Amino acid sequence: MLNYESVREAHRRIEGHVTRTPVWSSELLNEALGHHIDFKMDSLQPMGAFKIRGAANALLTLKEQDRLPDRVVALSSGNHAQAVAYVARKLGLPATIVMPENASALKRRLTQQYGATVQTTPNRDQAVALSEELRQVAGTHLVHPFNDETVMAGQGTSALEALEDLPEPPDAIFATCSGGGWLSGTYLAAEPRGIPVYGCEPALANDAAQSYRAGTIVRLPQPPTTLADAATVQEVGTLTFPFLQKLTGFFEVDEDEIAYWTQWLGVFLRSIVEPTSAVAMAGAVQWLRSQDRPTRLLVMISGGNVSTQTHQAVRARDWLSVWPSLLPMPKSAG
Amino acid sequence: MLNYESVREAHRRIEGHVTRTPVWSSELLNEALGHHIDFKMDSLQPMGAFKIRGAANALLTLKEQDRLPDRVVALSSGNHAQAVAYVARKLGLPATIVMPENASALKRRLTQQYGATVQTTPNRDQAVALSEELRQVAGTHLVHPFNDETVMAGQGTSALEALEDLPEPPDAIFATCSGGGWLSGTYLAAEPRGIPVYGCEPALANDAAQSYRAGTIVRLPQPPTTLADAATVQEVGTLTFPFLQKLTGFFEVDEDEIAYWTQWLGVFLRSIVEPTSAVAMAGAVQWLRSQDRPTRLLVMISGGNVSTQTHQAVRARDWLSVWPSLLPMPKSAG
Repeated sequence: MLNYESVREAHRRIEGHVTRTPVWSSELLNEALGHHIDFKMDSLQPMGAFKIRGAANALLTLKEQDRLPDRVVALSSGNHAQAVAYVARKLGLPATIVMPENASALKRRLTQQYGATVQTTPNRDQAVALSEELRQVAGTHLVHPFNDETVMAGQGTSALEALEDLPEPPDAIFATCSGGGWLSGTYLAAEPRGIPVYGCEPALANDAAQSYRAGTIVRLPQPPTTLADAATVQEVGTLTFPFLQKLTGFFEVDEDEIAYWTQWLGVFLRSIVEPTSAVAMAGAVQWLRSQDRPTRLLVMISGGNVSTQTHQAVRARDWLSVWPSLLPMPKSAG
Repeated sequence: MLNYESVREAHRRIEGHVTRTPVWSSELLNEALGHHIDFKMDSLQPMGAFKIRGAANALLTLKEQDRLPDRVVALSSGNHAQAVAYVARKLGLPATIVMPENASALKRRLTQQYGATVQTTPNRDQAVALSEELRQVAGTHLVHPFNDETVMAGQGTSALEALEDLPEPPDAIFATCSGGGWLSGTYLAAEPRGIPVYGCEPALANDAAQSYRAGTIVRLPQPPTTLADAATVQEVGTLTFPFLQKLTGFFEVDEDEIAYWTQWLGVFLRSIVEPTSAVAMAGAVQWLRSQDRPTRLLVMISGGNVSTQTHQAVRARDWLSVWPSLLPMPKSAG
C-alpha cells in the first residue's frame, strides 16, 4: 500500500543517483503578485526532468530485491525516455526506448546519447504494440511512465525535498497533471502535513480534470495537441486516479496562459522551463485570484527540455510586454 | 593600483549583497566535445547578470569611505541598468537610469521594477549628454559600466569564486568582451595562478580584438549590431585596455556560432543564457579545435536577460538538429 513512508523509502533509495534540486523564488515576481512563490526546480535534474526520480526508484527497487532485469524497455516520446535511458546506463543495463515517429529529433538524439537504442514506429498505437512485444522477451522489464507504484513513490521525492527545505509549509502546492504519477507522489509527500495539492492541466488536454469531476477515468477521444507537450496522455492511470481523487482541486489553463508563464518564468528564474511546467504556474495564478490575504505557494517545475519548434511556438507572441499581475491576461495583446 | 588583492577585497565587500553563483557542467556536452567545461553561472544573480558585482563594489566602496552619494545615475540599455537600479535600491539610494529609446521594453520595465527612474533619449549620443548633465548635480554619483576600477575589481569576483570552487585550476578561462570590465577582473583573479584568459567577441563587434592586435584602442565607426546585444560598445575603456593587452588571446565568433551555442547551452544547462554569454562558449570551442589532449576549461556565463525579439532571432534556425562536436559547424544547416 503506497503511503508517505513509500516516498521516504524511495528518497533514501535514489539518493546519490539523482540531484537534490534547489527551491528558487523571485523577488520581482513576488512583488508583482503580492504573494510568495517557491519553485521546486526539477528541470535541473541531470536529464532535465523529475522523471529521473521514478525511473531510478523503479530500477533500484528491483536491484534491492535482487531482481534487476537483463534489459529495460520504455515507451515515451519525451522526458521518461531520457530518464529511463539515463538511469539504465548508470546501472549498466541496456535500454530500448520505443518512440512514435513524431517525437522531436532532439529528444530522440538525447535519448540515444544516454546510451539507449531508440526504435521508432509510425504512430503511438504501433509503439504500444512494439513495447508490449519487447517486454515479452525473458529478462526484460518495462518501466511504465506513471502507472507503477515504484514510479509514483519516486516522483513524490521532489515535493518531499521541497517541504524539507522550505522554512515553513506552503499554503498550497501546484503541479501539472499528465498521467498522474507526479501528482500522486506529491500528494503522498504533502498528506501528513495536510497541505492542499492542486492539479493543473491544459484545457486542451483536460482528461484528469474531467475524470476528477466525473469520479471515473475519462479517456480523451484522441491524443491532445497543446504547447504543454509533456501533458498529453489520453487518460490517467488506474493506480494514479485514486490519488488524483484526493486532490483539493483542478485548474484548467488555456494556451495563452501557458505561453505567457513559460516566457515569464524564463525571465524570473533565468531557466528554460517547459510549457508543461508553466501549466502549474498558470493554475496557481488562477487560485491566487481568489485569495484575500498574502499566501505562500509551492509550484513544482517538472522539466526543462524544449525543442526549437516549441520555443518558436511559445514565443510567437511577445507576452513579455504584459507585466504579471493577478488581473486576467489581456486576450488581445500581441 | 588594481591587482589580485583588489578583487579579494571586493569579494569581502560585496558578500551578502550578491549571490555566490554555482559552477555547473554537463556530462553530455563534455562527452560530445571530449573536454571538461565548467560554467560559472552568473546569469543566476538576482538581476540576472554579473553586472551586479561591479555596481555593488562601486557603491559599497563609497559607503565604506563614508562618501555615499545622495543619488545614483547610470547610462545603460541593458544589464548594467538593472544592476545599478538593484544595488541602489538595496542601499536606499534613488537611481536614475538613462536609456536610448531603442532599449528593449522589457529591460526598461525591469529597471523600473527595481525602483529606478528611467529617462529615455532618442539616441545614444543624447543619452551620454543627458547622463553627463545629471552627474553634474551635487551629490550625484555616476556608475560607469566598465571604466572604473571599483567596477572592474567587482567583476573579477566571479572568476575568483569559480577558481575557489573548482577542484583543480582550469587550463584556460573564456569570457566575452564588451567594455572590458568583466575580462579585466577575470584576468586579475586568474593572474596569480598563471591561468591563460581569452577574450571572446562577436566578429561584428570586434573592437577589442582589433585593439588587441593594433596595440591601441580602436573605435568602431558606428554602434555594432549583433545577436550578442550586451557586447556592443564601440570602444573599450582606457582603464580596461591595459588589462586586455595582457590576455593570452582573442577569438572572434560569427552570428551562427552565437545562435548555435545559445540554443545548445539552453539544452545542456537548462538555463536562459544570453547570446552574449554564448560568445564565450563559441570562442572556447574555436580554441578546443587546436588542442590535442583533453582539457578543462572555465567558461564565464555573463547573463540571462533575453527579450522576446532576441529569443526569436536566436531561434529562427533550428541549430538543435546539429549535434555539438569540434568539427566546424555546417553553414548550410537550417
